[in-house]
Amino acid sequence: MADPAHRPGLVPGYNVPAAIGMSIDEVFTPALIVDLDAFERNVRTMAAFVREAGVRLRAHAKTHKSADIARYQIAQGGACGICCQKTSEAEALVEAGITDILVSNEVTDPKTIDRLARLCARARIVVCVDDAANVDALSAAAARHGAMLECLVEIDVGAGRCGVRPGDDAVRLAERIAAAPHLTFSGLQAYHGSAQHLRAFAERRGAIEAAVAMTRDTVARLDARGLSCAIVGGAGTGTFQFEGTSGVYNELQCGSYVFMDADYGRIRDESGAPIGTFENSLFILTSVMSHAKPDMAVCDAGLKVQSVDSGLPVVFGRSDVTYLKCSDEHGVITDPTGALRISDRLRLVPGHCDPTCNVHDWFVGVRGGRVECLWPVTARGRAF
Amino acid sequence: MADPAHRPGLVPGYNVPAAIGMSIDEVFTPALIVDLDAFERNVRTMAAFVREAGVRLRAHAKTHKSADIARYQIAQGGACGICCQKTSEAEALVEAGITDILVSNEVTDPKTIDRLARLCARARIVVCVDDAANVDALSAAAARHGAMLECLVEIDVGAGRCGVRPGDDAVRLAERIAAAPHLTFSGLQAYHGSAQHLRAFAERRGAIEAAVAMTRDTVARLDARGLSCAIVGGAGTGTFQFEGTSGVYNELQCGSYVFMDADYGRIRDESGAPIGTFENSLFILTSVMSHAKPDMAVCDAGLKVQSVDSGLPVVFGRSDVTYLKCSDEHGVITDPTGALRISDRLRLVPGHCDPTCNVHDWFVGVRGGRVECLWPVTARGRAF
Repeated sequence: MADPAHRPGLVPGYNVPAAIGMSIDEVFTPALIVDLDAFERNVRTMAAFVREAGVRLRAHAKTHKSADIARYQIAQGGACGICCQKTSEAEALVEAGITDILVSNEVTDPKTIDRLARLCARARIVVCVDDAANVDALSAAAARHGAMLECLVEIDVGAGRCGVRPGDDAVRLAERIAAAPHLTFSGLQAYHGSAQHLRAFAERRGAIEAAVAMTRDTVARLDARGLSCAIVGGAGTGTFQFEGTSGVYNELQCGSYVFMDADYGRIRDESGAPIGTFENSLFILTSVMSHAKPDMAVCDAGLKVQSVDSGLPVVFGRSDVTYLKCSDEHGVITDPTGALRISDRLRLVPGHCDPTCNVHDWFVGVRGGRVECLWPVTARGRAF
Repeated sequence: MADPAHRPGLVPGYNVPAAIGMSIDEVFTPALIVDLDAFERNVRTMAAFVREAGVRLRAHAKTHKSADIARYQIAQGGACGICCQKTSEAEALVEAGITDILVSNEVTDPKTIDRLARLCARARIVVCVDDAANVDALSAAAARHGAMLECLVEIDVGAGRCGVRPGDDAVRLAERIAAAPHLTFSGLQAYHGSAQHLRAFAERRGAIEAAVAMTRDTVARLDARGLSCAIVGGAGTGTFQFEGTSGVYNELQCGSYVFMDADYGRIRDESGAPIGTFENSLFILTSVMSHAKPDMAVCDAGLKVQSVDSGLPVVFGRSDVTYLKCSDEHGVITDPTGALRISDRLRLVPGHCDPTCNVHDWFVGVRGGRVECLWPVTARGRAF
């Protein structure tokens, strides 16, 4: 994998948490570290699944925003391309050499639509649509740039967010796309985001069964109008087995599988056990920086290095200490047995991987206790 | 104020949300905007308070991480210097010309201690201590760099985080500092973080009365040993009136007052009304990007552009629509009257300003509907 970290101007402890070759014990904390062995196993596990299921994987880069990881998912992980959520993310990934990108989201700002259309000269670009006027705006922008822009109709299959209703509303929008100059109707976006984190297996399966039924029906109505879906996309790390074996979805958009997080650690398989398909490979490396009370330590990882929207982080591999509360720059750790000392290091499994990666500038890739690579969070700050 | 945004390589909509002179309606969303008039009024209000109270303001840069704002607080806002939380933040601020910095936190990593001591050649540096072994490590590092490093003993006055117990524990640590070569004992850090957001006026006042009593007693014990406190520091935006008029604290460390946020909007004054001392000057500018259901809009500001640790953002100046839920890149907005259209713009007051600033690369300063300045979030990503 490319290592862009050998650049002048990078100073470990100032603007990057580590240097290649360092022992993990020397990494400046707090830092976002990737256990490369676990990461690679996760990538292989997903690649094997999609190969066996006979579906494509379009790995979601909103998890990591990293060109290095995106390239690895395509080169080694069975991915046909990448999803991202924003035009500026797509630009950053195209800049880094990714050539097949689905913006799995609506793009409605006129200036941003123009940027998206311009990008078609450099990569295959697909975008989602849930509004008729947006179809016209996309078509006009593609015409200005002499581009053909591929569009998916986004249908709301239960997430309660973007997307038109499945069925005839979707067909009407697809027909408008198909009739628009410089646009190609390429299929459906049918992602059920809120199903990913439902705790119980049966709940997740039920939600996706309903999504599959709506999607199947919509595909059939489109077929009846002569509109075939090259892409029927959706699925995430919590439910991909269901979409992947549905016979309806043909592109899976999983992202978190490369890293996992504490919230995914709380979802259950059919037997009621934690899902064992993927391993935690993403950690916040943190140091104890204060231990002025006997049963309480304070670590250097607070809100500035993680998102706690899905709960607090979990201390990895330790049952004797617990991350209790979080402020801007501190985490309070209960230490009832007084096991911790100042400068002791802990690995935290973040509550939610995607927004946690989003606050870091670097992934520190670690193998065998050494820093093997530094991957910039390429599209960090690209929110437009 | 300096405007570093006229640099080659900055492309609005790609790596910066705006250009100087743009109408606010042209700013790429989501973006972090600062209402400069409100911001400047907030700065003046605090400057007037500390002038009248006869105390110093050491404004906390952990809120904004911006060299431009720090310089403004010193030049125009009555600040004697700046606080920050991390050594790498201090380095970034010294690099930008700030010359009087308190790292209002413990620094315990040996390599980071070395960086801190090295910084003393370029600025006045003060750091907090709550551990005896840390005193020795700081002293050794200062000696290596031929520096004199100023230290405050941090006492826990109710926050339940870092800090030794007030009283004799603090005196013992102060004596160790005073006796250590290349260290100066400069006083006490007595910040009550958790008191800032207590809703009721009486609760906040009570918490700070207790903190003041502990601090006064510790100052007296130190005086009795011939150890005088040049700095007795603490206070935040929720409680500064109490510390500022206590006769004990002489340096206030308020940060959020420049911006305010939705959580500070929930604290109450003596009459039970929202505190009116400062105005909201910080907003997430967001656009409606989907409105496929009649009573629900989706905006482009999700978890990637804010921290929801202290609750969801509040839509500014609108009682007809409500920010209901948040996912990585989306905010769901209830729109019961169907008032919103795609591309409509809303201003969101973030739940918690400090970690929200931390996910952005730029502040877009706006006055009279125009972009007047672009301030980089100078120390973004400096977490070490």
